[in-house]
Amino acid sequence: MGPNLNTAINLADFEPLARARLDDNAWAYFSGGAGDEITLRENRLAWDGLRLLPRVLRPLQSAELGIEMLGRRWPHPLLMAPMAYQALAHPDGERAAALACAAQGAGYVLSTQAGTRLEDVAVLVRDEPGRGPLWFQLYPQADAGLTRELMQRAAAAGYEAIVLTVDAPVSGARDRERRVGFRLPAGVSAVNIPAGASPVDKDWRAAAPTWASVESMLDHAPLPVLLKGVLHPDDACQAAALGAAGLIVSNHGGRTLDTCLATAHALPRVADALQGAVPLLVDGGIRRGTDVLKALALGATAVLVGRPLLMALAANGASGVALGLRLLQDELLMALALTGCDSPAAVSRKLLQG
Amino acid sequence: MGPNLNTAINLADFEPLARARLDDNAWAYFSGGAGDEITLRENRLAWDGLRLLPRVLRPLQSAELGIEMLGRRWPHPLLMAPMAYQALAHPDGERAAALACAAQGAGYVLSTQAGTRLEDVAVLVRDEPGRGPLWFQLYPQADAGLTRELMQRAAAAGYEAIVLTVDAPVSGARDRERRVGFRLPAGVSAVNIPAGASPVDKDWRAAAPTWASVESMLDHAPLPVLLKGVLHPDDACQAAALGAAGLIVSNHGGRTLDTCLATAHALPRVADALQGAVPLLVDGGIRRGTDVLKALALGATAVLVGRPLLMALAANGASGVALGLRLLQDELLMALALTGCDSPAAVSRKLLQG
Amino acid sequence: MGPNLNTAINLADFEPLARARLDDNAWAYFSGGAGDEITLRENRLAWDGLRLLPRVLRPLQSAELGIEMLGRRWPHPLLMAPMAYQALAHPDGERAAALACAAQGAGYVLSTQAGTRLEDVAVLVRDEPGRGPLWFQLYPQADAGLTRELMQRAAAAGYEAIVLTVDAPVSGARDRERRVGFRLPAGVSAVNIPAGASPVDKDWRAAAPTWASVESMLDHAPLPVLLKGVLHPDDACQAAALGAAGLIVSNHGGRTLDTCLATAHALPRVADALQGAVPLLVDGGIRRGTDVLKALALGATAVLVGRPLLMALAANGASGVALGLRLLQDELLMALALTGCDSPAAVSRKLLQG
Amino acid sequence: MGPNLNTAINLADFEPLARARLDDNAWAYFSGGAGDEITLRENRLAWDGLRLLPRVLRPLQSAELGIEMLGRRWPHPLLMAPMAYQALAHPDGERAAALACAAQGAGYVLSTQAGTRLEDVAVLVRDEPGRGPLWFQLYPQADAGLTRELMQRAAAAGYEAIVLTVDAPVSGARDRERRVGFRLPAGVSAVNIPAGASPVDKDWRAAAPTWASVESMLDHAPLPVLLKGVLHPDDACQAAALGAAGLIVSNHGGRTLDTCLATAHALPRVADALQGAVPLLVDGGIRRGTDVLKALALGATAVLVGRPLLMALAANGASGVALGLRLLQDELLMALALTGCDSPAAVSRKLLQG
Repeated sequence: MGPNLNTAINLADFEPLARARLDDNAWAYFSGGAGDEITLRENRLAWDGLRLLPRVLRPLQSAELGIEMLGRRWPHPLLMAPMAYQALAHPDGERAAALACAAQGAGYVLSTQAGTRLEDVAVLVRDEPGRGPLWFQLYPQADAGLTRELMQRAAAAGYEAIVLTVDAPVSGARDRERRVGFRLPAGVSAVNIPAGASPVDKDWRAAAPTWASVESMLDHAPLPVLLKGVLHPDDACQAAALGAAGLIVSNHGGRTLDTCLATAHALPRVADALQGAVPLLVDGGIRRGTDVLKALALGATAVLVGRPLLMALAANGASGVALGLRLLQDELLMALALTGCDSPAAVSRKLLQG
Repeated sequence: MGPNLNTAINLADFEPLARARLDDNAWAYFSGGAGDEITLRENRLAWDGLRLLPRVLRPLQSAELGIEMLGRRWPHPLLMAPMAYQALAHPDGERAAALACAAQGAGYVLSTQAGTRLEDVAVLVRDEPGRGPLWFQLYPQADAGLTRELMQRAAAAGYEAIVLTVDAPVSGARDRERRVGFRLPAGVSAVNIPAGASPVDKDWRAAAPTWASVESMLDHAPLPVLLKGVLHPDDACQAAALGAAGLIVSNHGGRTLDTCLATAHALPRVADALQGAVPLLVDGGIRRGTDVLKALALGATAVLVGRPLLMALAANGASGVALGLRLLQDELLMALALTGCDSPAAVSRKLLQG
Repeated sequence: MGPNLNTAINLADFEPLARARLDDNAWAYFSGGAGDEITLRENRLAWDGLRLLPRVLRPLQSAELGIEMLGRRWPHPLLMAPMAYQALAHPDGERAAALACAAQGAGYVLSTQAGTRLEDVAVLVRDEPGRGPLWFQLYPQADAGLTRELMQRAAAAGYEAIVLTVDAPVSGARDRERRVGFRLPAGVSAVNIPAGASPVDKDWRAAAPTWASVESMLDHAPLPVLLKGVLHPDDACQAAALGAAGLIVSNHGGRTLDTCLATAHALPRVADALQGAVPLLVDGGIRRGTDVLKALALGATAVLVGRPLLMALAANGASGVALGLRLLQDELLMALALTGCDSPAAVSRKLLQG
Repeated sequence: MGPNLNTAINLADFEPLARARLDDNAWAYFSGGAGDEITLRENRLAWDGLRLLPRVLRPLQSAELGIEMLGRRWPHPLLMAPMAYQALAHPDGERAAALACAAQGAGYVLSTQAGTRLEDVAVLVRDEPGRGPLWFQLYPQADAGLTRELMQRAAAAGYEAIVLTVDAPVSGARDRERRVGFRLPAGVSAVNIPAGASPVDKDWRAAAPTWASVESMLDHAPLPVLLKGVLHPDDACQAAALGAAGLIVSNHGGRTLDTCLATAHALPRVADALQGAVPLLVDGGIRRGTDVLKALALGATAVLVGRPLLMALAANGASGVALGLRLLQDELLMALALTGCDSPAAVSRKLLQG
């Protein structure tokens, strides 16, 4: 008898369940980080290391999880982070993940490197009542025309924002992938971009996006654009000044530059620099309701969750993802109540030990 | 041959003895903490991490453990913390625990969720010569009348104070309990409150106590009321201003909000804010005589010990609890002598490395 | 084939060799510390944790290990710490240890609780050319007359100083000893004090030494008296003011008060307070030549080494102790050379990273 | 089937491959550090412990690895550190290592204690197009004439600089070597110095170099001289003032003085003191491209890599060394790109979290 999905009582529980279902190739791809995986581990440890100083006896009669972001109200502050090739995790791939997110009121960010046409995902979920944000993630393409085309397609399909990933001009040192000789299996490919348009190492220098190329994209974007992968406060301010609609503090889940700052440590500095100019989101290592609470306390409006939901997808498809999101919402509501907060907006940095 | 109770030479020794006697259900309930049990562990590590700077050659001729608290003198500063359903640990349950405490001069705090009628416990011990404090712990009930009735019964039975727990408007993420599917066994129930009066998650919002509801309780309480579960200095000051007779710095033994501040770290801040306005107690992770000494040094008048005495109860009933309390008193007296203190009152923060 | 003494190439190597030769009773006695043995471990870790900032190209032509202390010149700054009942470790007991120390130019401090008459040890070594200091350790006795008599005997036998241990008015929580039910084997006893004169717990309060009783001892002592077991700077200053000839910063090898300050952390504070008023020594956790160098850098004139030499004694009697002392001298000379110092006097706190 | 060289995807991978090929004697010699190997480990941990704060969207169109040093331009900032007796690692010894370095554009520093004539190494590589620096390492010899002769030979053979090691007036406590009874096997010897000229412990005092002897060497050196083994800022300034052409911050790979400062911690202090007066290099614990980046950020112009390239040599001779250097260059280029730097010169301390 293999692992039992019913044993998943928190997000971390999906990892061994997924390991049992994934082959070494897919496992290396999803579980690995760059180099010695120091940042991968530290992303988690950084949340664990923050100490809460709860308040008692505050009114909780109307406690709830709703947030406002980019001019709309959403059921809660959770989104599924963009991750490539979700069909590697489960045959239903992006469809299952997006449906589960919509059913749970969570946002879904489709990857440029999705194995499903962006229009096919959008049509499944865009009219779902009570769903969360529907966004499209974009790697800047060497071909500016292609970038523009992808943004137009996303807007036409019903996506509400573009997430532009700026922290990966090259791949990181993915030692785990190299150790297994990772390859995409037959039948899985990035269907939204033309064959050959994917970044190839030999011309990464020419393809690397710059502030100038991003400014041009922002000027012509049909949708609000959030920049993902910003850790330095000065870069955050520059992005906001150029018209970014929001920022995602991220180190690519520890997959690109090992030993870079954990996102929990970068977030408050970026928040202090931005002074609320644009909404901030964060990803990396979030597994617990208390992690989400801490992200809110440090200045985030919402958070993205990556690997653990991917593991949940691998473990049990859409049901797994839905269960994972349900568990995290439950934990977040408990964390709010136990710190004396009746909503995400009531959370402030004072809840953290100085 | 099973574990031998005679091998218990310190409080930690009772844990493996208890594990051998408890089923998985009870073990999960008593041993577990919230979430990843970070606060559960840190409660211990925080005491371990404090360094003593002892003095030598001070007079010890009259060294002893007695303290003053709430207007009376007690044999020593140890109380058994309130813990629910002690019959899960040993058939003699709260009776055995309360008797052992009385015999050893330790205080006993009966839980609202005791499996024994509060009057039955009180009658066993209240006239015991040399006993410690006898207090009744209360979860604020949604029904204010029920709360008042419980306080009246406690006063009538001979309890000397009410301990009002304010840090648990909801249960925490008790993953261990969920993993075993924890249930109260037949025959164990909270006999002091009407069936159905126990907090149920679906109406926790309405039942959650507030400063207003607590103020009203304090105004009508027939006994001194100590608030248990306060970590923030501002909350401590507000409680004192509203008439609380004392405060117990506690994080519910790490069972509600994971990654909240360890009590050893919260205590000095609360003590500094209160400036002695009301007596302070503390629980969480205390296992050694040096831990008690450190609590006194940081501003506590007395300490509550929970899990290890529960484990002693599981290991050997009243004898176990008595042995545990004896060992801890012996260690405390040694710790006083080895730091040059002849009484708890002689302990000051100067004994701790700055 | 058992462990091979020839494998000892550093002081730590003697521990497994000793373990193989000692029974559980003796092992518990010699290896154990108080409580959870946190201070026992931290004594070591504290030396390990100090970082050296070496200098290069300084003149080493006349590099050597000699020191001045209490008005005499000695071959090097190493002494064997006082330890009771050395016959538990090896049949030759104190005789073997003292001879090995003399042969290696190291000091020897005989314990009050030695199993050999103090005169018998002195006569063996006092005329040895090139030996180190010969001191007698004293636990203050409840009977002041007995204390005076012991000091007179020590002076008459040729001891050059008294080491008065002030940090143990009671034994610590020696859990390891209690776990094995430690008892002195037949034939081993404290022959220098009358049967029944040993401190017994039931009257420790009356027997506990005070500043007043120590002052009286200092006034009548026939030899210079060093106080052993001082950690607090104020106690150190008081001892110097009352006429102590020197101080030994010690926490009794982690055997009395667990979680008290490591000696490497206490030493610089005491040195700063004393400003050179009297010579300072230190023990606790010293295993390496670099540890000795660090002690000198923090203000010590000499160091005492306890357990590892006891383990060497257990492993191979006098030869073991001599080898241990030889290894430590070799390491110390290397450490001096590699930091640019040509003598212990050339070592200063500047060698340590600030 | 033994370990497979093809499994080496980062520098650390060579270590198990080398272990499988080396006997205990050679393994102890190459892998060991001084004492408890605390500095050996900390050299690594210190780089791991530095956190990068990357910048995004900076121009990378002309990203490359070239540096300027001592008046010339080199392909990248990597050199192979001087290590004795490379024939112990592989039959091709220094020849293989030097050739691999030249082929990869890396510098090579030949050890005084090489098993190959310095002229034989030089002739192999000095005319290699695209090679890195070719330097000769020197232990100051007791015989000043011999030192001068070696420098003249090195200059005549085409070496471009002398690396004078100043941190080893004596060997360290090489416990691993002593444990295996390390000896040079037949056929391996230091062929560049006369038999008997190697430092012998019994006269190390007389042979120990001083500032005066070094000054005299610098005055007569036919080549630029870099001092290797400097950790203290004052020593660094003195060396620069006396005419050293550069400095190598090093603790001899943790092989001499255990618990001395890690080089990553010493480097910025030395850089701050020198203010760019002479080029700085560093070695010790560098395994990753991000380590090299951090060294550049802290003020180094180039870095030396020792043990891991020796392990690569042991694993697969010249091919192993070349692969190791290739992997490290690849990682360094990725690290530059991912932090927004298009060359080593663009790296500044601002990339490190303050």
